Amino acid sequence: MTRRPPPGRRPPRVERGGDRDRDRDVAGEPVELRIYGLNAVQAVFAKRPDAIRKLYLAEARIPQLQPLLRWCVAHRLGYRVVGADDLQKLAASAHHEGVVADVLQERPASLTHWLRTLAPGPHVALWLDGVGNPHNLGAILRSAAHFGASALLLSKHASLALSGAAARVAEGGAEAVPLVRLGREDNAVAQLHGAGFALAGTLVRGGNDLFGARIPERVVYVLGAEQSGMSSALAAACDLRLSIPGSGAVESLNVASACAVLLAQWAQRHR
Amino acid sequence: MTRRPPPGRRPPRVERGGDRDRDRDVAGEPVELRIYGLNAVQAVFAKRPDAIRKLYLAEARIPQLQPLLRWCVAHRLGYRVVGADDLQKLAASAHHEGVVADVLQERPASLTHWLRTLAPGPHVALWLDGVGNPHNLGAILRSAAHFGASALLLSKHASLALSGAAARVAEGGAEAVPLVRLGREDNAVAQLHGAGFALAGTLVRGGNDLFGARIPERVVYVLGAEQSGMSSALAAACDLRLSIPGSGAVESLNVASACAVLLAQWAQRHR
Repeated sequence: MTRRPPPGRRPPRVERGGDRDRDRDVAGEPVELRIYGLNAVQAVFAKRPDAIRKLYLAEARIPQLQPLLRWCVAHRLGYRVVGADDLQKLAASAHHEGVVADVLQERPASLTHWLRTLAPGPHVALWLDGVGNPHNLGAILRSAAHFGASALLLSKHASLALSGAAARVAEGGAEAVPLVRLGREDNAVAQLHGAGFALAGTLVRGGNDLFGARIPERVVYVLGAEQSGMSSALAAACDLRLSIPGSGAVESLNVASACAVLLAQWAQRHR
Repeated sequence: MTRRPPPGRRPPRVERGGDRDRDRDVAGEPVELRIYGLNAVQAVFAKRPDAIRKLYLAEARIPQLQPLLRWCVAHRLGYRVVGADDLQKLAASAHHEGVVADVLQERPASLTHWLRTLAPGPHVALWLDGVGNPHNLGAILRSAAHFGASALLLSKHASLALSGAAARVAEGGAEAVPLVRLGREDNAVAQLHGAGFALAGTLVRGGNDLFGARIPERVVYVLGAEQSGMSSALAAACDLRLSIPGSGAVESLNVASACAVLLAQWAQRHR
């Protein structure tokens, strides 16, 4: 399973498990990500088959993955039928669902690029300022894909990045929602305002009742970390402050559940 | 850490990690559950301090847990300050957040008992027919607590039960939402109808648009397993069929995200 790079060419780096390389969107070379899970791998094949570099699968998955296997043969891509133990090792997870793939990662877009390519009309996006857990990120990507969110914006220094675990939990949603890496916060806010977006900060309590509030047709929901919330500068830059009203029996919703409720409210009014 | 039962008294069984005992709500003796996570333990202490049997905590948690430690001293309950490795072993999880406790489990109520004690007026409940993952159960309990759901109904033969992992993810929500174990499905449906509840089956596609549908003020949302859906007999017994409209980019929402959206819709209209 070792691969020897051709002379003079460095092999793409592979990110494994939940780890990440902080520099991956700075360096120029392509970066591979090891993903797993049936819907995660099928979604890459459907959208970016050229990104697939190597495939490992359980024998039981062969019938279901025929089109992908034919693609591998036609494009001289290596695939290997392996046992469950190997799949678990390759994925560094028991949740491999019988298929693991090394794929070239899509680099997060810049805000400028994303705004330039945006269609006219209503759009919703999420700005995650401190969500670090790959399961939450995956669940958020799945909901964002379901409700047709236009992007997931990541703060400049956020440690958040797509991992194999997040892609699996996203069930294909990672291929449907562009990641956008922001630059300086004040510039990002100005650019979003310039494109007609309102920034809606979400607070555990003290914001306007989400159910009664006006939600602009172009909105960016800003969500902070579960413990610490969003940065105070970012909170101050928000045009709206929203809270999801609750019983008080728990402190708050989980951040992924909150995203689902927020996106549903936008979809209910603007789809 | 071994405990010797007094003569003639059997020690309560302890359920550890994600495991469960299928008979636990049938047998008469109290069953202990090992829980972990700060909000999970604090919620038991706030609501049922008598249920706490044993406490393990990290030294760093002592200041925050003063009231609980005073309770332990006053009631001659054992507590032990232990290191992170021991906490991880005791919780069988790295997510112990510095505190682990053995607590007596609240037995799921019967449907008859739950209906008898229900206040007049609007109520929402969830009927989970096949949700097995403890993280989903925990996330569902957290959302159910947030939106003031009156119960989580579990099918007679569902393998679902509260575990330490689910209680941790629920962030205290497990203490706020009663679990109700159903008997025969046809009886349960008849009893719920008799109490004025409509059953709203939730489908990945083909149901009425949730955002446009009438949602009765007494409603039980019925959710099936992510893969197989609910049983066909149960689907046929539903009064409404609802779907959360989406882009089609992913097959469906995660079941916990779907619950959050469904509960939010009820709260928006009836709170």
